[in-house]
Amino acid sequence: MTEIQAWASHGPKQKLERFAFNPGALDPEGVEIAVEYCGLCHSDLSIINNDWGISQYPVVPGHEAIGRVIAIGNQVKGVHVGQYVGIGWNSGSCMHCHQCMGGNNNLCSTLQPTIVGHHGGFSQRLRAHWAWVIPLPDSLDIASAGPLLCGGVTVFSPLLTFDVKPTDHVGIVGIGGLGHMGLKFAKAWGCEVSAFTSHESKTAEAISFGAHHVISSQDTTAMLQASNTLDMLIVTVNVALDWASLLKTLKPNGRLHVVGAVLDPMPISAFDLISGQKSISGSPTGSSVDLTTMLKFAARHDIRPQVEHFPMSRVNDALEHLASGKARYRIVLDTDFS
Amino acid sequence: MTEIQAWASHGPKQKLERFAFNPGALDPEGVEIAVEYCGLCHSDLSIINNDWGISQYPVVPGHEAIGRVIAIGNQVKGVHVGQYVGIGWNSGSCMHCHQCMGGNNNLCSTLQPTIVGHHGGFSQRLRAHWAWVIPLPDSLDIASAGPLLCGGVTVFSPLLTFDVKPTDHVGIVGIGGLGHMGLKFAKAWGCEVSAFTSHESKTAEAISFGAHHVISSQDTTAMLQASNTLDMLIVTVNVALDWASLLKTLKPNGRLHVVGAVLDPMPISAFDLISGQKSISGSPTGSSVDLTTMLKFAARHDIRPQVEHFPMSRVNDALEHLASGKARYRIVLDTDFS
Repeated sequence: MTEIQAWASHGPKQKLERFAFNPGALDPEGVEIAVEYCGLCHSDLSIINNDWGISQYPVVPGHEAIGRVIAIGNQVKGVHVGQYVGIGWNSGSCMHCHQCMGGNNNLCSTLQPTIVGHHGGFSQRLRAHWAWVIPLPDSLDIASAGPLLCGGVTVFSPLLTFDVKPTDHVGIVGIGGLGHMGLKFAKAWGCEVSAFTSHESKTAEAISFGAHHVISSQDTTAMLQASNTLDMLIVTVNVALDWASLLKTLKPNGRLHVVGAVLDPMPISAFDLISGQKSISGSPTGSSVDLTTMLKFAARHDIRPQVEHFPMSRVNDALEHLASGKARYRIVLDTDFS
Repeated sequence: MTEIQAWASHGPKQKLERFAFNPGALDPEGVEIAVEYCGLCHSDLSIINNDWGISQYPVVPGHEAIGRVIAIGNQVKGVHVGQYVGIGWNSGSCMHCHQCMGGNNNLCSTLQPTIVGHHGGFSQRLRAHWAWVIPLPDSLDIASAGPLLCGGVTVFSPLLTFDVKPTDHVGIVGIGGLGHMGLKFAKAWGCEVSAFTSHESKTAEAISFGAHHVISSQDTTAMLQASNTLDMLIVTVNVALDWASLLKTLKPNGRLHVVGAVLDPMPISAFDLISGQKSISGSPTGSSVDLTTMLKFAARHDIRPQVEHFPMSRVNDALEHLASGKARYRIVLDTDFS
């Protein structure tokens, strides 16, 4: 195999630079794709900056990759050369533990993240275990599909995992890269949908994404009026919130579900959980089956992330755009290695 | 109706004194029982002392009452005079809201607790709405059954509500009034059972109650060995714990469930929930149907709370025994009004 051209960060908060590496022989269960598009996710920024203390440099970010299969190992199942596929946050799992065998390969203890100890999708070519290479439905728009592979499945999986019903009322906190997809999925799921945002400027867009109600999380009167209305509240932001006031928006048996990596501990009152039999939970992206199910659902409902495109050669501009909070709502890099 | 003789507290931390009150006319949907036994629960102490700020004096405690029906209103269903019944934490709910109609009358917003704004079971006679008067299975031991009506259902309901499977591994934190019944129920449920206690002296008894494993929650090595073993962990104590270390004992998709009214906020890390798709939840006793289901299950498996009896005239001694942490494991007062 020839060298792979990529963009890499060589240390925390460093700009990405061109980087070439030799990928070695393809694993018998490995798939290699030629990347055409790759989403830029907030967790790329977290790994570039080592916010979670798990980064391994050089970091080649990118874990929302879309491309065509160009090579497969001789033990690969379910994927063939020439097929359009996506690769998300995970690129491998053991495939023989209780979680993998039970359909929850996103909970495998030896999960291989695409951008930690593995070179990601800001590159010409990307590799993953066949189980994590997800064939795209024909009708999916490949230019905008990338963000579905991480951000999309992250907000979709809770609907699937926790048996949310179309008769339920779902709230989404934070109308950003994850949240705007959450609104679209919850609307298509048939639910009553409430958007919670601290930016009133996003009201009209939140409605266009599928919200029936837009509630300012800063407005204590509005928050009080939203008491006892929600079956599920998905929190997509990664900052400390007024957890007690959010728990109040849940009906009895309601669930507050966090997918944003809030770093500060959440001070939760046991009474707030006990009195209405409420739950708080979290989840990491989704399994291979969740990804496949999500893509079929997205294709059928024509759910597309709202994206801004940058050529991959302008990745540093794109990162700055994301870091400054200006992305509306998700960024996709178009591969342009020369 | 003649006056009812009872024991009441007239203010926070005051000893109980003899107290008589006129109950007025029986409600058309009301049932009156002659109390024979009444369990003494830690929440009686909390209400006597106004620990939760909701007490209404005079407080007549007692919400684990066993007795015979002596009068029923003309709209009462499912209960008849002469029948042995139990009355637990709740004595009434609206019976027409979404929660009541949906089988979750323990989550009704107008729930009437037996000992808040209502005179409880440390009395000759006790009243409740028919829906909360639970007929006892014939084979149930009435002298020890009282504590099943509050403490028992509190640890039983989570098994029912969250679809715990007999193949699951259940942990119980705190081997006391609630926890010892939790061990018995989880064992009879068919589960692998682990007891977590800070009192090594309780090891042999925990095993006799049904624990397959007894783990010292103070022993960091033992706690580490228990990592990734539990499907559900029921926390029955009401003190602050090392929540991060307890969450580690859960398998992916595991649930930490609190039924002890821990007053300090629990500082929960979002990462600890996200990485293994874990949940934290709470629940308040159980519905009428939960109570009926629990009593049938207890009768079939001969599950009896381990109790110490006091005559009701020695209620203050019993309260002191409970407050000092010496109860092994649950106290029942035998009615002896003269």
